[in-house]
Amino acid sequence: MRRIVLKIEYNGKNFCGFQTQPDKRTVQEEIEKAIEKATGEKVNLVGSGRTDSGVHAEGQIAHFDTNSNIPPEKFAFAINPYLDSDVSVVESFLKYDGFHARFSAKKKTYEYKMYYSPVPHPLKDERFYRLKFPVDVKKMKKACKYFLGKHDFKCFLASNSKVKDTVRVIYKAKVEKRGEDIIFTVQGNGFLYNMVRIMAGTLVKVGEGKIKPKEVKNVIKSGKRQSAGITLAPEGLTLKKVEY
Amino acid sequence: MRRIVLKIEYNGKNFCGFQTQPDKRTVQEEIEKAIEKATGEKVNLVGSGRTDSGVHAEGQIAHFDTNSNIPPEKFAFAINPYLDSDVSVVESFLKYDGFHARFSAKKKTYEYKMYYSPVPHPLKDERFYRLKFPVDVKKMKKACKYFLGKHDFKCFLASNSKVKDTVRVIYKAKVEKRGEDIIFTVQGNGFLYNMVRIMAGTLVKVGEGKIKPKEVKNVIKSGKRQSAGITLAPEGLTLKKVEY
Repeated sequence: MRRIVLKIEYNGKNFCGFQTQPDKRTVQEEIEKAIEKATGEKVNLVGSGRTDSGVHAEGQIAHFDTNSNIPPEKFAFAINPYLDSDVSVVESFLKYDGFHARFSAKKKTYEYKMYYSPVPHPLKDERFYRLKFPVDVKKMKKACKYFLGKHDFKCFLASNSKVKDTVRVIYKAKVEKRGEDIIFTVQGNGFLYNMVRIMAGTLVKVGEGKIKPKEVKNVIKSGKRQSAGITLAPEGLTLKKVEY
Repeated sequence: MRRIVLKIEYNGKNFCGFQTQPDKRTVQEEIEKAIEKATGEKVNLVGSGRTDSGVHAEGQIAHFDTNSNIPPEKFAFAINPYLDSDVSVVESFLKYDGFHARFSAKKKTYEYKMYYSPVPHPLKDERFYRLKFPVDVKKMKKACKYFLGKHDFKCFLASNSKVKDTVRVIYKAKVEKRGEDIIFTVQGNGFLYNMVRIMAGTLVKVGEGKIKPKEVKNVIKSGKRQSAGITLAPEGLTLKKVEY
């Protein structure tokens, strides 16, 4: 038995997230079916974490155990022919038995992409959230620093979640302007359900001048979901990297 | 009666091209239906030209005549609510009566986007053609200059086309490397059916070392479709700009 690790890229549009759910199309199930076709084995694919319905990934990590004698780095090529065009194994490699895609993960990096335009842009709108009103990016940059460090991020937790431990550590948080695009990048030891999308929504609230950058500190302190911004749409969000 | 001009952006994936065809989803028909919903008028939308099934546009131009009293620049906002998310009117403006989206067009610019990767990348593959083998971009750059000027481009015409006049003028043709992306940009007074995709396929043939850059001159001279490269897939192609 060998533990194989996959790096997976997907366009989340037509997926109900990563993790298997009854009667829904998920990344986990699509890849498990492809592995079965490639190796004849039924496996359990363990991801680094869920991604929400509609969220993309460039670097989702997952592991499974196999008796197949396919060389580790060849799994990508063995699995891909059985996958639809919106998901791909971009890399495969061997890991030690104790490695766990979820529990061994140390850092995750997400990117939330936005742009301002009064009209839709079909060639962007599958990967970007379109802002209908202009925002002050300088203010958004300033607000970012209040995310840094160890905090109780209950205010950024989806209101229907039952998670108890809402403390997380944020290592990096920045907003950049790349041409017309506004990119929010955040790295942490883990994220709550909808957390990045609510952080992005809070930055937009700052950018629109509805709250001052320094008030983000109070939003976090308050622990109140309604103090934060709205949950921005999933199409702007991409899981960029998982580090171990 | 006023002549209104629209600048249109679309993701070609789920369209059978721009021009109306029976029982097919086309950009022309979708926009004509949206205009009817916005104004109550049945109009005939005239595009700068067809785009093939699957080809994208950032700057398709089209005109129609209307008695509606919507201000010209507001048509974009009046029409867009009736369009699906893969097509958008990004600008609308008034033109003089004699203006014709097709016959007044002086120059068109297309972009063909490629990248090399042994594995698929779902987050790119809708807009880029994936090369399965590496190519020598320097050679492709060299080959480009043979496209320039007035030539009979019969060799780059789809074999099932019945067009008689195959002479066109190419004003600009270049290949650039942007990170891992290889972008072929070409500007001309007009293009034959499949012409840009066959030009791109010919550049790939050069990049793969199957023919030398200077042999592109002979390919054009020969007028033979089989001397040129293959017709690359439509998803890499975008109509960038139409100039008048």
